[in-house]
Amino acid sequence: MSFATRLAEAVRRTRSVTCVGLDPRKGSLPLSLREAVANDRPEEWAAAYTQFCCEIIDVVADIVPCVKPQAAFFEQLGPAGMISLGEVVAHARRNNLLVILDGKRNDIGSTATAYADAYLGADSPWGSDSLTVSPYLGRDSIEPFVEVCDARQAGIFVLVKTSNPGGGLLQNRETDGQTVYARVAELLKELNSTRLDPGGYGPVGAVVGATYPQELAAMRAAMPSSWILIPGFGAQGGAAEDVKVGFDSDGMGAVVNSSRHIIFAHSRAEYADKFGDARWHDAVRAATEQMNQQLNVLK
Amino acid sequence: MSFATRLAEAVRRTRSVTCVGLDPRKGSLPLSLREAVANDRPEEWAAAYTQFCCEIIDVVADIVPCVKPQAAFFEQLGPAGMISLGEVVAHARRNNLLVILDGKRNDIGSTATAYADAYLGADSPWGSDSLTVSPYLGRDSIEPFVEVCDARQAGIFVLVKTSNPGGGLLQNRETDGQTVYARVAELLKELNSTRLDPGGYGPVGAVVGATYPQELAAMRAAMPSSWILIPGFGAQGGAAEDVKVGFDSDGMGAVVNSSRHIIFAHSRAEYADKFGDARWHDAVRAATEQMNQQLNVLK
Repeated sequence: MSFATRLAEAVRRTRSVTCVGLDPRKGSLPLSLREAVANDRPEEWAAAYTQFCCEIIDVVADIVPCVKPQAAFFEQLGPAGMISLGEVVAHARRNNLLVILDGKRNDIGSTATAYADAYLGADSPWGSDSLTVSPYLGRDSIEPFVEVCDARQAGIFVLVKTSNPGGGLLQNRETDGQTVYARVAELLKELNSTRLDPGGYGPVGAVVGATYPQELAAMRAAMPSSWILIPGFGAQGGAAEDVKVGFDSDGMGAVVNSSRHIIFAHSRAEYADKFGDARWHDAVRAATEQMNQQLNVLK
Repeated sequence: MSFATRLAEAVRRTRSVTCVGLDPRKGSLPLSLREAVANDRPEEWAAAYTQFCCEIIDVVADIVPCVKPQAAFFEQLGPAGMISLGEVVAHARRNNLLVILDGKRNDIGSTATAYADAYLGADSPWGSDSLTVSPYLGRDSIEPFVEVCDARQAGIFVLVKTSNPGGGLLQNRETDGQTVYARVAELLKELNSTRLDPGGYGPVGAVVGATYPQELAAMRAAMPSSWILIPGFGAQGGAAEDVKVGFDSDGMGAVVNSSRHIIFAHSRAEYADKFGDARWHDAVRAATEQMNQQLNVLK
């Protein structure tokens, strides 16, 4: 079954469009996990990351469709972190969660194929369902990923309009009235056009930040066949009203990511008193349920 | 000593502007290395990649300033490949070669910092001298890398104009007469302006492909303080005449990468008969010396 169809089914099954971002950071882990790291060795931190992310997966698996591990934080621990990343991806998949690996990879030709094989291929040691991809190198850097998606029923999410304040420097530049990000959107629509599932979506998704609602609405219209991954909700400032324009008329076609606001919910003012550090699992569950309620868009 | 100064010294010491790209691919390895892989396990391939790359390093260490391992091929092997990558980086540094890790990483804010720490930071498990970075996310995605460069005397090479045919799709789009890649160049010049070494170069380098000589000449002029990493020479079609415009008036300020043409020289028609597979080390040495002669630009 295609990635787009699997994602749609997962959204319907859980009645949730929340994507839980798995961004483990040493200093923000719950105290019990930090205390278990006795000698500050990468292997110890990797074990803590694995435990932290897998326990989050256990807490949210029945109420969200997908998780998004951020590769950078695992890479920071070196090979031990990469082993942890593989364990987290496998645990999520065992628990019926779709995995969006956030690696923002890209390169030219056969090197792009190597990245696609690495994260999505038949022999992928990480075995993710999908991967985020950067578009700066153009169409021939994205096509190798799409070919692997075709072969493996996997998906990609290409950066279109990012949520950071500086994203506009290149993305918002206009040529004959068309911005760079709109040109990327046009390309994604083209790439999907011969690959649509019965629901009308293809394997080539897009990343469009929650922090620019007008642009998000425009991109929803410009890419009717792309699932949109919407980061920037919560900690980065995007509100529920801002992201609702990212969905299609059935309330489908997008998932909204929140990382810190969910995984480190035990540190948020509203949960710190109620649950505190010791009950961090309950804080994760409560924050996820709260986000599901805020984003109750499914028709 | 700053990365720019170290690179300049390495170029002067070796009288070479050749960067040897370390792109190990299973199918292209010399026969003896492939035969040692008995069971097609990632750990065996990783050992073959380590041996292959480290032996190349031994062959070229006295005649080139730097090597460029391509992360994608190591990532393809999973955690075992990432261990190999670390071993290759360490071996290059022990042999006095500067390392340009080709990862084309990027992300926003604190995640960009995680990537920078991962590959260039004080506790980096990979410990590279420099890293390639993609600019699509804008200035605030590049600054975290530059800050780590400042702290660690490391360098980055930001994609400006890439060597692939499709690179122009976004990079060549013009706004008020300025292309996207020229806008990136302007940003890099700005970022370097407060960070110049006595030679006039800063830590923020650029990637500009050999396949577009006119653009390379323009980018040399636009970024007088950026070391330029020039890919696309040899296998991708760039010729010696094409890349000479990438250097400053002293014949400094750029290094030219060749991967397949050097590391798989034993398969090239001109070397296959003379050396063949068994003498692949000699083919690597001969191809590197040939490239050094072709690029004899140093004044």
